[in-house]
Amino acid sequence: MAASPTPKFIRRVPEGDDRERLLCPDCGHVAYENPKIVVGSVVDLDGGVLLCRRAIEPRRGFWTLPAGYMEMHETVEEGARREAWEEARARLTLDGILAVYSIARLGQVQVMFRARLAEPGFEPGPESLEVRRFEWEDVPWDDLAFPSVHWALRAWRAGRDSPLGTPATNPASDHRGTAPLPVGNPA
Amino acid sequence: MAASPTPKFIRRVPEGDDRERLLCPDCGHVAYENPKIVVGSVVDLDGGVLLCRRAIEPRRGFWTLPAGYMEMHETVEEGARREAWEEARARLTLDGILAVYSIARLGQVQVMFRARLAEPGFEPGPESLEVRRFEWEDVPWDDLAFPSVHWALRAWRAGRDSPLGTPATNPASDHRGTAPLPVGNPA
Repeated sequence: MAASPTPKFIRRVPEGDDRERLLCPDCGHVAYENPKIVVGSVVDLDGGVLLCRRAIEPRRGFWTLPAGYMEMHETVEEGARREAWEEARARLTLDGILAVYSIARLGQVQVMFRARLAEPGFEPGPESLEVRRFEWEDVPWDDLAFPSVHWALRAWRAGRDSPLGTPATNPASDHRGTAPLPVGNPA
Repeated sequence: MAASPTPKFIRRVPEGDDRERLLCPDCGHVAYENPKIVVGSVVDLDGGVLLCRRAIEPRRGFWTLPAGYMEMHETVEEGARREAWEEARARLTLDGILAVYSIARLGQVQVMFRARLAEPGFEPGPESLEVRRFEWEDVPWDDLAFPSVHWALRAWRAGRDSPLGTPATNPASDHRGTAPLPVGNPA
């Protein structure tokens, strides 16, 4: 879903600007590139967590949280609930913001919520091969799709029995979000 | 700084997608439009706050917080510090996230930090006519640039003597960020 400019576009510093932007040399259109927002949730299912196995690239076949790109004219909360419906056919109640992560490598900010089911039931949406509840002990650490899935799960685990406080941010080991995908259980 | 597609671009639902996107009818380029992230800070100056009078549109001449569009390949924290330097020549230490606002009307998410000066001094950058410290009693409520400046100042005031907790979100009176600009002191 990322913008994929055609090779036609060139990089140049527009007049009055201080950095290179993507321009169409024919029509002069400036395609500003800004970080995109990912909204998602750690969904508490009776003390376990809901994970989705991705049916699409990147990281097809790996487990992730219900999360995705925020769309225009929705709020972060609406986006997180929409993604949970699209990927897991789950209707969520959001407790609040669990974490805000920056993935500078990709130009991405992730706003992750702590959530519960608003009504019973979940099943795979079109972007998921499988949707399951995992006990903490059974989380498939070696098969998680992205570092931020590790981070958000750990942030959820650290605070799951407490009221939400200040949001978790990137771990010290990757405070800018530039590390490649990890493997194994970081807990 | 918002993308300004030329009239040449058309709106159509691309194959496999579920909503209209901006396409160039000549080259097929899809200009995905996603919400943009604004990063900024309420800077505590010995119990007062730092405000900047805007030298640029929109809302030239009105008072705002040091804040602006996040750029690619920076973190939210780096973006907030960069904006404070650009607009107020202030070097900040960030306490943490004060608020996360959705402005659905514009397709915008604002991540606002609580901050202090990391070193003494501030002065107008190129986008500010004036940068000043205001006592709470003297905040120019009638001349603030945006609703979210009101919101963030009130969130700061409510918690300024406490550790940061869960971030403030949109007020109930405008929970999606669709209201027009307010006037007067909402406090």
